[in-house]
Amino acid sequence: MNSPQTLAQKIIAKASGKQHVVPGEIVTCQLDLVLMHDSSGPRRVKSRLEDLGAKVFDPSKIVLVSDHFVPATDPESAEILALTRRWAQDNLVNHFYDMQGICHVMLPQQGHLKPGMFLVGGDSHSPTGGAFATFMVGIGATEMTGALATGEIWIKVPETIRINWSGELPDGCSAKDIMLFLCKKLGMNNNYKVMEFGGETVRAMSMFERMVLCNMSAELGGKTGIIEADETTTEWIKSTGQAVDIDALDWQSDNKAKYEAVYHFNASDLVPQVAAPHSPENTDNVDVFSDVTVHQAYIGACTGAKLSDLHMAARVLKGQKVAQGTRLLIAPASVKTTEMAAKDGTLSLLTEAGAIMLPTGCGACAGMGAGAIANGENCISSTSRNFKGRMGSPDSNVYLASPYTVAASAIAGKIADPRLFLTNQP
Amino acid sequence: MNSPQTLAQKIIAKASGKQHVVPGEIVTCQLDLVLMHDSSGPRRVKSRLEDLGAKVFDPSKIVLVSDHFVPATDPESAEILALTRRWAQDNLVNHFYDMQGICHVMLPQQGHLKPGMFLVGGDSHSPTGGAFATFMVGIGATEMTGALATGEIWIKVPETIRINWSGELPDGCSAKDIMLFLCKKLGMNNNYKVMEFGGETVRAMSMFERMVLCNMSAELGGKTGIIEADETTTEWIKSTGQAVDIDALDWQSDNKAKYEAVYHFNASDLVPQVAAPHSPENTDNVDVFSDVTVHQAYIGACTGAKLSDLHMAARVLKGQKVAQGTRLLIAPASVKTTEMAAKDGTLSLLTEAGAIMLPTGCGACAGMGAGAIANGENCISSTSRNFKGRMGSPDSNVYLASPYTVAASAIAGKIADPRLFLTNQP
Repeated sequence: MNSPQTLAQKIIAKASGKQHVVPGEIVTCQLDLVLMHDSSGPRRVKSRLEDLGAKVFDPSKIVLVSDHFVPATDPESAEILALTRRWAQDNLVNHFYDMQGICHVMLPQQGHLKPGMFLVGGDSHSPTGGAFATFMVGIGATEMTGALATGEIWIKVPETIRINWSGELPDGCSAKDIMLFLCKKLGMNNNYKVMEFGGETVRAMSMFERMVLCNMSAELGGKTGIIEADETTTEWIKSTGQAVDIDALDWQSDNKAKYEAVYHFNASDLVPQVAAPHSPENTDNVDVFSDVTVHQAYIGACTGAKLSDLHMAARVLKGQKVAQGTRLLIAPASVKTTEMAAKDGTLSLLTEAGAIMLPTGCGACAGMGAGAIANGENCISSTSRNFKGRMGSPDSNVYLASPYTVAASAIAGKIADPRLFLTNQP
Repeated sequence: MNSPQTLAQKIIAKASGKQHVVPGEIVTCQLDLVLMHDSSGPRRVKSRLEDLGAKVFDPSKIVLVSDHFVPATDPESAEILALTRRWAQDNLVNHFYDMQGICHVMLPQQGHLKPGMFLVGGDSHSPTGGAFATFMVGIGATEMTGALATGEIWIKVPETIRINWSGELPDGCSAKDIMLFLCKKLGMNNNYKVMEFGGETVRAMSMFERMVLCNMSAELGGKTGIIEADETTTEWIKSTGQAVDIDALDWQSDNKAKYEAVYHFNASDLVPQVAAPHSPENTDNVDVFSDVTVHQAYIGACTGAKLSDLHMAARVLKGQKVAQGTRLLIAPASVKTTEMAAKDGTLSLLTEAGAIMLPTGCGACAGMGAGAIANGENCISSTSRNFKGRMGSPDSNVYLASPYTVAASAIAGKIADPRLFLTNQP
């Protein structure tokens, strides 16, 4: 009889046509789906595929998203978008979302993710998909070329680290605080590990919040992040109009699965976290940073501008005004996010407080589009990375925090504890 | 007894402390207000003023607007904005509108314009202010330095050309069609002339539409554009919460004022106009261009993204969808424009049709921010200039048209006559 397996092992086993895999084993997996965006996608793989004389293995299994160079800010980015559009057309890629949102949010929003899927994505935050009990990893352009040509990829089965959270998250804390805390606690070199999140705190989380955990597994250095399927997972899938597979809830780790390590944390002990420049692991409690002047507050990116993130910001910003000398920029994670925020009143609440809405896209998180910062300026951001110069001048400083804390800091003009401003809206 | 004067002469006379001026005379005028933006302003004049050891003549008479580099898309633009903000603070410039809208729209929106004022602006579309029976001209950085240091400027009194429009504009035509028509009819070399617009068609226009006439006097090559004050003018001023001067309605040209030329046109003969690349004077009737594929439709800029412009677009887009392969980008002329469009339902109507909303600012019209176009792409735009490479690649093509026509073309995917799509909304 086979030994118990983790969720990641089970998915890899299925994708490689096996009953069972063990960490360290090298197997070849069939791809259920391939994600690319305008930066990692056609501009990188078009000529490689042409040189090989290869065609894409199955256009229906490719999701292409323009989210990095959108909307174009110069002729070069316009040219990359034009190439992306032509390639989608030439290769009959119908799942092409053009300027509709950030790829990691578009995938679940459009119902592309189901438990048990094995996917690759041309982006380092591809682990986000793991929130839906999929195994999804980021790859570079060379591997992507092979994946597109063959529909498969080899993988060395990774070890899994289990991270359990119990207790209730205090009001004003969120999945982002958990991940910043973990970047400090576990460091950023958990290389090639699957980070499996569980426990009652995680089970109580919305899919949006679970996505943050898996998304920032990338900052932990993990191969990917993953969360077992439950009814929150299947409810989401149904809400997108997709059918739920009969075995959806079976995508769990076995009871006695072997983890390389198991951590336990208590969510009720958490306070709002802030990562200082220039690394997510430079994290400490929010009150440590109360002297830091904020020139720009930024709510954006796959990890920090979903509808739930805008709701967090709105709860803090309701009836308040952005401080003089501080600007608050908000780039929702998708067009649909903006539409939903418009419908439920969140958008007007944000703009009444003085927020400046930006078009959807990766934007300033990736050093693109609007929101670049100047020499000596401080930015507090709901994004996932604060590496030197990533959001503008190399002499600027980026602090990472939850949308709650970013919004509170926008009001105060300094890094501020959101628990001082929380309302029950919306 | 003095000979009759045009409105421009009257304002120049007042500003120079005279009863009467004649074209060709050189006089020195007191400045009622100085407009600068982040591109023409502090970054150009700061060191010049410092070299002179000069201070600004009166901070309360300066209006500073950040509209070109907003929101910053790279460290360089972030730095220009940071410099602009510091300069405003250091020089006690309280009328500083930071990322709140395009300067030519902010001036009247915030109630800074009154009939009879003499103003300079650091931007070529400064003639826009003439719609409020002011004399407002664009100047460069050297003259701006002198203006800031002394509060006055010399001017050679220009000749005035009177352009009369009678008849009713057909539905689906607008002030933009009038100006494109005039660019073709009168050419772009009416150098150093004041273009005075009048007649029943102009008197029937809203202030928003009158602003388009004066704005695009710049494209006619004029020194400025101007329109006599009437109750539409004073109603606007009251709507901004400003008092109306007792002599406001007196700012008219004298009955027998001497014009260098007087033109008469009939508005009811007009059909939607389109200017082909690469000049506003390459204008013809819309049906001439019905074969042109549209990759990008752009509604933006001081001349083309006011509330009235969004209303025009909404009347065409209601219940329609932007064509596959075409993108429609809309950058409202001010934050307040966006807010008003959100309140009256225009915004949701635009986004439901597939429009992508951009933050306010000069944006792609000035080759900045979002909306750059690629090699070989065609853009139809509600902006004022289609010079080669202005909106992106030098191998792209920009067609100018009214917001009606831009919206219709976004639906059709080709340049299209808006009269086919007009609804009564909003």
